[in-house]
Amino acid sequence: MNATVTGDGEHAPGDVIAKRLADEARALDARDPLARWRDRFVVSDPELAYLDGNSLGMTPRATLDRLRHVVEHEWAGGLIGSWEHWIDLPQAVGDELAPLIGARPGEVVVHDSVSVNLYQLVHAAVALRPERSVIAVDRTDFPTDRYLVDAVAAATGRSVHRDLDESMPWPDVAVVVRSHVDYRTAEVADLSAETAKARGAGALTIWDLSHSAGVLAFDVHAAGVELAVGCTYKYLNGGPGAPGFSFVTRELITSIDQPIHGWHGHRDVFRMADRYEPRDDIGRLRIGTPGILGLTAARTGIGMTSDAGIDLVDAKARDLTEFALRCCDELGLESPTPRDRNRRGGHVSIRHPDADAVTRDLAEHWRVVADFRHPDLIRLGCSPLTTRFRDVVAGTVAIALAPLGRD
Amino acid sequence: MNATVTGDGEHAPGDVIAKRLADEARALDARDPLARWRDRFVVSDPELAYLDGNSLGMTPRATLDRLRHVVEHEWAGGLIGSWEHWIDLPQAVGDELAPLIGARPGEVVVHDSVSVNLYQLVHAAVALRPERSVIAVDRTDFPTDRYLVDAVAAATGRSVHRDLDESMPWPDVAVVVRSHVDYRTAEVADLSAETAKARGAGALTIWDLSHSAGVLAFDVHAAGVELAVGCTYKYLNGGPGAPGFSFVTRELITSIDQPIHGWHGHRDVFRMADRYEPRDDIGRLRIGTPGILGLTAARTGIGMTSDAGIDLVDAKARDLTEFALRCCDELGLESPTPRDRNRRGGHVSIRHPDADAVTRDLAEHWRVVADFRHPDLIRLGCSPLTTRFRDVVAGTVAIALAPLGRD
Repeated sequence: MNATVTGDGEHAPGDVIAKRLADEARALDARDPLARWRDRFVVSDPELAYLDGNSLGMTPRATLDRLRHVVEHEWAGGLIGSWEHWIDLPQAVGDELAPLIGARPGEVVVHDSVSVNLYQLVHAAVALRPERSVIAVDRTDFPTDRYLVDAVAAATGRSVHRDLDESMPWPDVAVVVRSHVDYRTAEVADLSAETAKARGAGALTIWDLSHSAGVLAFDVHAAGVELAVGCTYKYLNGGPGAPGFSFVTRELITSIDQPIHGWHGHRDVFRMADRYEPRDDIGRLRIGTPGILGLTAARTGIGMTSDAGIDLVDAKARDLTEFALRCCDELGLESPTPRDRNRRGGHVSIRHPDADAVTRDLAEHWRVVADFRHPDLIRLGCSPLTTRFRDVVAGTVAIALAPLGRD
Repeated sequence: MNATVTGDGEHAPGDVIAKRLADEARALDARDPLARWRDRFVVSDPELAYLDGNSLGMTPRATLDRLRHVVEHEWAGGLIGSWEHWIDLPQAVGDELAPLIGARPGEVVVHDSVSVNLYQLVHAAVALRPERSVIAVDRTDFPTDRYLVDAVAAATGRSVHRDLDESMPWPDVAVVVRSHVDYRTAEVADLSAETAKARGAGALTIWDLSHSAGVLAFDVHAAGVELAVGCTYKYLNGGPGAPGFSFVTRELITSIDQPIHGWHGHRDVFRMADRYEPRDDIGRLRIGTPGILGLTAARTGIGMTSDAGIDLVDAKARDLTEFALRCCDELGLESPTPRDRNRRGGHVSIRHPDADAVTRDLAEHWRVVADFRHPDLIRLGCSPLTTRFRDVVAGTVAIALAPLGRD
């Protein structure tokens, strides 16, 4: 730490800045009302600055106990009889997740993957606007969202509009697919205004809440949101590949005709009926047999955020990212993340010409885990139940010094 | 056990028959080369006759240890870095499953659910026969298979032919969806002859191996099978809702265009490319982020059957079902399950006018777990790594006596 931070020449020597930021972080951590929540997670290396909870949340201590219970008591002990309880789990866990996004009971189901869920909803939404020929998704949106829109458009004879700007051909737009938080810059879209604008033009909006659920406090109903999908393995700490979730506003549920007609979406799964008749609740989005281990871990993570309180989580996310941006400024790092605390999600991105190599260097030599997003971004995820202010300092200082360190 | 078994009058009193069958079972269990495998499973109630491993396999003791390792070391310890290893897991586990069905490395992927997998392959197969207008699935096949065929047919403008008999309109048939083992009667279809017949007529066959994988020894390549899906939570003991698997013969893989274009099916998942370009291996069937906990449990179960040896498993399945059918005969129970040991899968069904109530009665009063299949079948699953010959006696005797016992 005896190097001088590169920058515009107005910066103090790096070690002085770093020390000041570290002192400040210590004070912020000391008065953080969520600080004790970190103790409920498995911390393998207390010195590690894990700034990737926006990609894979840390491991709740309770998860292994819950898994043990499910494996030993429910699976081994209850055997097939446990399906009496498991059969409702996708919707029961959905009801537990619902308050975190402002949804009502019966409007959320936790199942399959975000990609599968989005595929279902794009198909269903297009079917609700049969006379319209366009699906819109921004060319900068998350890849799986774009790929799925392209695929559904091709399958249903629609075209794709790739710029969500004034060029939108609104009279033809059936569906807009839109990420609530930009996975690169962390910019937050205006749920309410964008949904209203699309609805005013006769289009449906499907929101991808993957980077907002469990970190920002918002209310799908206050914003008029009708359809959404999201992820449980990021800020909700549900574990690697934990199932996604789907939200459909109550008024639309029975209008949803999703294309993958599996037996668990049937109104009477064990009747083995001749024809598919979808359930008349949110369970009509279900497909095959739900993965109970993944659901169990997802439920544990969701429960922790519920217990901590989404408002406290949201406030800490904004404080962490604000502090991260100030660290960037002081250390001469460039960030495309919005300065307005109400316009950004739970991560801060740093633009760096050598982002990929630096991200690897952080993990190998600095005990800092961030992630790289092609082509030039290093993302620092601030996951309020586990991220400390000192981790933010460790991450930004390491990025500022890492290129020198590798010389 | 002092009641007389009802029947045609030629039977010995029930207790004498039951005792003779129990003695015989004891001898069969004593010389069963797979008997020791039961010790590798969690047995919560040693007296329970669990005859439902064809719906949900029992719990390998190793599963919780493996889950603990993944949760504590890979997730909590390795954090995001563990994706370097996890990313290949659907195909790595597929390669471990492959030899159980005669597939080659690179031809099997374990992912999503059987329903999703079948949806993908039916779409892909229809696209390979664009000039043909019919998808065939028997009206007695498993519901999710029929529902999915109906859905894909409706979406692609095809019609469905529901009788796999001489009425098949072969020149128009694009795809046949067919269960290897009938989920009701356990009758085994002739993989080789049926695949060849369809291929001779220009049609593709998608086999559903859910009720044969892990219990029967067969060889997809010897039989000329090109496409298949199957289940890991039944005979493969992968746990509740464990992921399904897909098989595509090597020669067809790059011709498969499945409709759900998720980022994990992309040839470079983290490049975040503009357009979807499918992988050129079996991974092109992947969709979203794989559920690592479910895959871990599936892998454990698959490994046990591999270690035990599929030929021994197959031989014991046939011995168990043969013995079950003899019990049925002696106890005056009617079974639609084929008598030819090469023509049946791993379960034996009993036709009973009061099947639903009897099945519940078995669980409540006889410590026998079987399952009911609408409208009049009680299924006794014989899962070779866990089912004892004495369980078969307990199950059949209880069915023979249960109705009297409830008077």
